[in-house]
Amino acid sequence: MDHVANQQKTEALALRYGADAVPAAGPWNDHIALLLSHRSVRGYRPDAPPEGTLETLVATAQSAATSSNMQTWSVLSVNNPAARAELARIANDQKHIQQCPLFLVWLADVARNQRVAAEEGETLEAAPYLEAFLVAAIDAALAAQNAVVAAESLGLSTVYIGALRNEPETVSRLLGLPDGVVCLFGLCIGYAAEATSNEVKPRLPQSIVLHHETYATTGETAERHAYDLRMGAFSRRNEVSADDWTRRVIRRMGKIKAMNGRHTLRSTLERLGFPLR
Amino acid sequence: MDHVANQQKTEALALRYGADAVPAAGPWNDHIALLLSHRSVRGYRPDAPPEGTLETLVATAQSAATSSNMQTWSVLSVNNPAARAELARIANDQKHIQQCPLFLVWLADVARNQRVAAEEGETLEAAPYLEAFLVAAIDAALAAQNAVVAAESLGLSTVYIGALRNEPETVSRLLGLPDGVVCLFGLCIGYAAEATSNEVKPRLPQSIVLHHETYATTGETAERHAYDLRMGAFSRRNEVSADDWTRRVIRRMGKIKAMNGRHTLRSTLERLGFPLR
Repeated sequence: MDHVANQQKTEALALRYGADAVPAAGPWNDHIALLLSHRSVRGYRPDAPPEGTLETLVATAQSAATSSNMQTWSVLSVNNPAARAELARIANDQKHIQQCPLFLVWLADVARNQRVAAEEGETLEAAPYLEAFLVAAIDAALAAQNAVVAAESLGLSTVYIGALRNEPETVSRLLGLPDGVVCLFGLCIGYAAEATSNEVKPRLPQSIVLHHETYATTGETAERHAYDLRMGAFSRRNEVSADDWTRRVIRRMGKIKAMNGRHTLRSTLERLGFPLR
Repeated sequence: MDHVANQQKTEALALRYGADAVPAAGPWNDHIALLLSHRSVRGYRPDAPPEGTLETLVATAQSAATSSNMQTWSVLSVNNPAARAELARIANDQKHIQQCPLFLVWLADVARNQRVAAEEGETLEAAPYLEAFLVAAIDAALAAQNAVVAAESLGLSTVYIGALRNEPETVSRLLGLPDGVVCLFGLCIGYAAEATSNEVKPRLPQSIVLHHETYATTGETAERHAYDLRMGAFSRRNEVSADDWTRRVIRRMGKIKAMNGRHTLRSTLERLGFPLR
């Protein structure tokens, strides 16, 4: 690796982990640099991306691995302004859902394979099980992440919208989803507005997330305190709140109320054709 | 786009969808070409990748988006031959699990954030809910897919191993996973053995998977029949079975028996600290 590439690598890792927590990464190239540079963007210019961008992104999504080639996911592009407004409302008024030129809803979809089987006079005994839903969710996520990488390679920015799960039944009605199809998350895609913060968000030290041979928590508390300092400083530079990471975890996961209704997801999924046996 | 790039794009799309089902994709670049070229590989040379490869891959994984920065996933690298052998057994004797130089187990992990909260005298009310598990699974998948893209950019091949879910409790004992941590899938990484098939697997036509404004099934049956022909031909060229896609769906999802024990996943997860309320 030449000197310039090595310097870029060290800088990218320092932005992602903090200069005091750079992991011992080895190989490096432009693809890896692109992945390291990811940041979620919540403000978009109205400019549409070039014609065929959606189809390019979906081609990358479909190129991701899918369990036994079952392909139990779909993606739905929403342009209708009234539908966008309703989706933004569901997601606690995230204005970028209305603002971005491309908005995709990623769907767990076991209904397609059920239709295929029904046309052959068969039923799919596995479809109502948690396993089928989990495979659909994982495969949709693999697909979506390929689309995100492709979008960022084209100079576009993205942000995932998990808050569609605040009201999956409303989303189903709005988008005409049949039983056995449910929204997993949305995805805004577009060119970042200039005012948008451009700083990469630090993550937990690699030593806490990566385990060898067996799961270990040695050193976790000290590493977490160091990360709290980094995230506190990041928040003061970039956000209204100056909470450290520990406070965020407790604020986000501590109380049912902060789930915005998602504590009912299990019964909602059952009504939408996913009994999760 | 110059002539050569345009020709590469058309060829890549024809391999992924069949020459008679190329979607109207627009922008193209080397990152997108890399994503389109993905194939899962089930035979590896023993050669180890360069030092620091694991750390590079995990840095790309941690650079993927994670819901509210909660980071509720971990990854565990397994090198111990006895553990590899046991994991291969669990996964219906997939020999590549023992053969590949890097084997990673991707984990849904709400336990770390629970430990963080406990150290501050708090509990996380959201942790036992389906929503928390789903977020962990989705975020782990986004992370893993970044690692896959990075690995492929380095000339390495990969294959996801969903069959670890045949026996999640055995995997937990083997790897010392605490309550609130569970294996989602494995990942083999290494240099492809020369004998390995190199053909890109065709996917469903984009028109079936991509919906506009509302979910629609118009044309699905005819498109599926065309895909059956393509997959049948692919199978005859590359695999022992010559099943078309419809037959595969019915064989894979039609009977509980084909789930290899995964129909008990819900109760297993409950025992492993995921009550999925």
